[in-house]
Formats: sequence, structure tokens, C-alpha cells
Amino acid sequence: MLQFSEIEAAAARLEGIALRTPVVTSRTLDEMLGMQVLMKAENLQRMGAFKFRGGYNSVAVLSEAERERGVVAFSSGNHAQAVALAARLHGCRATIVMPHDAPALKLAATRGYGAEVIVYDRYTEDRAAIAQRLTEERGAALIPPFDHLPVMAGQGTAALELIEDAGPLDALIVCAGGGGFLSGCTVAAKHLLPGIQVFGAEPERGNDMQLSLARGEIVTIDVPRTICDGQQTQAVGRHPFEVIQAHVAGVLTAGDPAVVDAMRFAFERMKLVLEPSGACALAALMQNRERFAGQRVGVTLSGGNIGIDRFVALMNGDEPVD
Amino acid sequence: MLQFSEIEAAAARLEGIALRTPVVTSRTLDEMLGMQVLMKAENLQRMGAFKFRGGYNSVAVLSEAERERGVVAFSSGNHAQAVALAARLHGCRATIVMPHDAPALKLAATRGYGAEVIVYDRYTEDRAAIAQRLTEERGAALIPPFDHLPVMAGQGTAALELIEDAGPLDALIVCAGGGGFLSGCTVAAKHLLPGIQVFGAEPERGNDMQLSLARGEIVTIDVPRTICDGQQTQAVGRHPFEVIQAHVAGVLTAGDPAVVDAMRFAFERMKLVLEPSGACALAALMQNRERFAGQRVGVTLSGGNIGIDRFVALMNGDEPVD
Repeated sequence: MLQFSEIEAAAARLEGIALRTPVVTSRTLDEMLGMQVLMKAENLQRMGAFKFRGGYNSVAVLSEAERERGVVAFSSGNHAQAVALAARLHGCRATIVMPHDAPALKLAATRGYGAEVIVYDRYTEDRAAIAQRLTEERGAALIPPFDHLPVMAGQGTAALELIEDAGPLDALIVCAGGGGFLSGCTVAAKHLLPGIQVFGAEPERGNDMQLSLARGEIVTIDVPRTICDGQQTQAVGRHPFEVIQAHVAGVLTAGDPAVVDAMRFAFERMKLVLEPSGACALAALMQNRERFAGQRVGVTLSGGNIGIDRFVALMNGDEPVD
Repeated sequence: MLQFSEIEAAAARLEGIALRTPVVTSRTLDEMLGMQVLMKAENLQRMGAFKFRGGYNSVAVLSEAERERGVVAFSSGNHAQAVALAARLHGCRATIVMPHDAPALKLAATRGYGAEVIVYDRYTEDRAAIAQRLTEERGAALIPPFDHLPVMAGQGTAALELIEDAGPLDALIVCAGGGGFLSGCTVAAKHLLPGIQVFGAEPERGNDMQLSLARGEIVTIDVPRTICDGQQTQAVGRHPFEVIQAHVAGVLTAGDPAVVDAMRFAFERMKLVLEPSGACALAALMQNRERFAGQRVGVTLSGGNIGIDRFVALMNGDEPVD
């Protein structure tokens, strides 16, 4: 299982390279919800999401010889950019396998970091198999988006910083897709604050982690149709699930309309741009506020990679939200 | 003339009350412009703009007896909210005179802070006369938006923090309307870094400060029709102009289309929401990039109070920009 020492080591590798993003607060939000909310603004992280932490740590732990053969990643978006940027910073080659319908901004940014992008159809093709074939053909190291200890350790540094900067918390709510961010943050939070309750936050239509926790085993679902494009994973990873099962208090969900409301609130009241998945934990908190009344709650704002056109469409209701 | 000691005193009053906003950077921007840009994100300040600093400081320097009679302010928006919030924090009454066409979000927020709002037509009525009458009738203290030493001192704390956090700068570009922010920041910057070049940034269509500097006297213009609603001042203030004439290297301008481009860049690449006036200094830098090639440049992102509807209209080109 992921150890806190690996998160500390990741923090040392990321020092001066990842940004120590600010912890933001909103008195309006606190009054609205009747609690104190401390938000880790990972939308302000390099390449616009927490994923940089895990991607960078994973490239950093490779040997010189491994890095020379390059890295491969498959990702719906932010992990792609994270590995592309991490590879560039290490001077090594990156090949990224991305769904053909990934947001244009994410495709462009990944290419902008100098990576080779290979697209596939996320509803009919198996991205893991494609990536596997590529690693075999090229001898490159595969960097999975979440089911990978160095990724989990890197992501956990966000919770480490949040707690160092914000002080004691009663609860922490972390956006969850494959569980890399949630598991890393859980190990960090539980080490620093043994009494803290850690929750995952998933889109209602993609609640595989909630189902998995309830059944006590990993449940695989169809590709969820949700606006939260960073959380369209079909199943939690094996390594993350081990941590989640042992230490997570529960998984909250947020409907797509609540996610849009949270994005709107972040824009108008906090002056922050959040992508749908980046607003999921805040939306889940808003939707489950009674549970946290009077508490001091940490929330991850996990990413802000959304183009203006899509943002406008979501605000205007032009993109289906249900 | 405003002294640095007054800015230090304001910083002490604001300690723990105003936010120490982050200094943000963007490698994409640096590469695009060929310089190093360090941006003070005052859009993340309390009530969404740097104006909180000056408003709070101005209420804080009043005597207990003065505060009991309340405060009055006239403002196109952010100063209104600043004084309203500062008054609430001091437990005193605020009356705010605002133009009838001020952004709805700003009108609502000002009322939300508990202030009484009186609206007027900015093209036909004289707001200063209205405010003057109110102060006489009520015995309240008038807090002018820029031509007032405690306001200037408060605004200057933003540059103080920027330089403390960012280190040495070759140049500093500050959004300018009536000159309160620019003059305060100039005194702070010149004290800390005597060799720094400080520039104001105005909308092209409202370049009264540029004209005033060129003529060596305060020039009054018609209410400028620009999307930069926070900079529709007709003339720089007397106290600010004294500092600006003595210590400012020049005034840059930005066209409305450049302001929209800067807002778009901030949204997509920096995940920050800026109102038009809040993006003016960044836009002016983008429009005058040759002048700063290879330098280390500080820029104020002065505010983020814009509703989604207006933001969308500006991005779609539905609001006239020329």
C-alpha cells in the first residue's frame, strides 16, 4: 500500500517545479453552507491541474536509461498534458494516447508540450491495449493515469500542502476518477490528521467507486456520459482501491447541474475557472452540505482546463446536462 | 505627497484582513512575450478587487466618532463594494452613490454588504455633487475613490506585497483610472526598488492620464465609452497626479479588443477571471511588448468582478468592442 514516505519523497522531487498552489476561501460560500471551506486551487497548478504532480513524479523516478527510451501514457486529458510536460522537463520523448473527443484545448496543449498524440475512439477501442502495444514496440515506460504508486504519491502532495497551509480539518473532499488523487490525498491526510474523514467526489452518472466501496470489490461500469470529462473512468484502480477501502469515509456524488452551479459560483464569486471535473468536489459538498455543517472542510479544486466555447455552452445550457 | 510610511501603516492595518493575494506566473505568457511577467492577482482579493485595500484603510483611519456618523462613497463599482464591506467590518453605516448602468453584479454585491445604494445617470449627473450633498445632510465622512491619501496608501500595499514576494523588477505596470492604485503602487515600488520604471495602463478611449502627463496638467475628458467600466474616470485626481508626474515613467494604453484578448488568455491559460479593467495592464503589456523585451515585469490583475452573462457577451463579440 502507498506509504506516506513516498509522498514526502515526491514532495521533495516537486519542490520548486510544481507550484505550491494557494488555499482559497470564500466568506460567501462559508455563510451559504454554514461551514468553513478551504479549497486547494489546483486549477492554478502547472498545466492547469493536479495531474502534473503525479506525472512529474512518475517520470522523475525512472532511471536515466528508462527515460532515454521515452514514456507512454493514455489519458482523457490532464494526465496526458502532465506526462507530456514532465517528459519535456526531463528532456525525454512522450507518446500520448488520447480519446478522439477529448477537449480541443487539452489535445492542443498536449501537442504543445511536444508530445506525439495518438487518438482513439473511447466508446469502441481499449486504450490500455493500445498503450500496451506501443510500450512493447518502442520499449518506452508506460505511465498509467492512476493505478501506479508514483502517480498516487505525486497527487498526495496536494493534500500535504493543503493541510500544512490550512491547518487542521475535520473532513477532506477529493475529486475522484480512477482514484489516484483520492488515494494519494487520503494517505497524506490520514498521516497528518489521523482523525480526519476523507471523502471521494464522483459524478452521479459515473459512481463506480461508490458502488465498489459498497460491494467491497472493484465494480466496472460503462463509460459514463457526464460533463465531467476527467472522471469518465470505468473502474477504480487496484492500488488506489486498497487505500480507499481501508481509509476513506465514503464517496459523495454530484449531478451535472450541481457541477455547473459550482463552476458558476467559482467564476462569479471566486474569480476562478474550473473545468467540470475540477468543480466536482465543490459540487458534491454543496449537494451534501448537511453532513458537514459547522465543520472545517478541505476541498480540492482539481483542474481548470476548459475552453471558453465549452464553458459558454455549459453556462448557456447548450451542452446536455441532466 | 503620499509617503511610504503611510503605505507601511496601511499594510499593518490590513494585516489579517485583506488577503495576501498570490503572485501568478505563466510560462506560456513569458514565452509569448519574451520576458518574465509576475502578476499580482488582486482579482482574488476580498470583494474581488484591489479596491478593498484603500477602502478598508480609509475607514480604519477615521475616529470612532466619525465612524458613528457613517461613510459615503461614489463609485462605478469596486470602490463601492470596498467601502460597503469596510464599513460592515467596522460596524458602521455606508451610503454608496453608483451609476445606474453599473454592472448588476457590482450593484447586487454592494447591497449585499449592507450598504444603502443611491443610483444616478453617469452621463448627465455629477456624482461628486450628489455625494457632497449627502455628506452634508448626514454628517457622514466622504471616502473618495482615488483622490484621497488613505485610499492611495491602501492601494499601494499591493505593490509592496508584489515586490516582497516576487523580488526585483525592472518595470511595473498598474491599471489606472483616477490614479489611486497607480500612485500608491508607485510610491511603494520606488521606495523598495529605486531603479524600477512604473507605468500606468489606461483604455485607449479613456487616456486622460496620458494626455495629462504630456501636457503637464490635469486634462478632463468626456466619460470614455470603453468596456473597461472601472476606468471611466474623466480626470486623474490631484493627489495621485502629484506622484504620477514626479515618478511614473509613462502611461501605456490598451484597445478594447486587446483587453478582451487578455481576458481570454487569463481564462484559458491562467484559469483566472478578470473584468475588463482588471485585464487592462496585461493587455497594455501585450500591446507594448517590444518595450519590455527581456525584462522582469510586474503587472497588476486588478479585479475580477464580472458576471458570466457579460463575460460571455464580450467573448462572443455581442458587446461593442472597437
